[in-house]
Amino acid sequence: MSETRMYRISVGRRALSEYLASIAIIFNQGAKTVVIRGNGENIYRAVNLYNILKSRLGDGIRLLNVRIGSERRGFRYVPYIEIEVERVGS
Amino acid sequence: MSETRMYRISVGRRALSEYLASIAIIFNQGAKTVVIRGNGENIYRAVNLYNILKSRLGDGIRLLNVRIGSERRGFRYVPYIEIEVERVGS
Repeated sequence: MSETRMYRISVGRRALSEYLASIAIIFNQGAKTVVIRGNGENIYRAVNLYNILKSRLGDGIRLLNVRIGSERRGFRYVPYIEIEVERVGS
Repeated sequence: MSETRMYRISVGRRALSEYLASIAIIFNQGAKTVVIRGNGENIYRAVNLYNILKSRLGDGIRLLNVRIGSERRGFRYVPYIEIEVERVGS
């Protein structure tokens, strides 16, 4: 698997444990980085997901970048966050 | 006023317009950077505040850094976001 491909997890209303499982699978398949994305009220959940991931994997992951902004959804703008996480080590 | 001093706006349950006014005052007093902070559910509101500020001031501000993490509050951990914004130009 190419390490330059970008994997994105969009956090919605499912249980955080499901997103954690998805990230674990992506990393186990050899991906180097994952982007955790959340829109609107899910921004809070995206940060929470990162914190849980960090508490479990510790030095096994590194926070690369956090982007925030807003995107158009029909007639209104919705804020988003993108948290880029790198897997460290093998 | 020294430009190295750090100003922090903690976003709570007040109207976003009040925080916008606070930031305007801080910048008008000569501060170069402001940190917008939000905990828990207010992370969403902090990102929203940044987006509104950006839509109003445009190139007048620049996003310097976004930090996320969690901090202990009594017996539990609460996620937070810190958005560092720089005033550009005079």
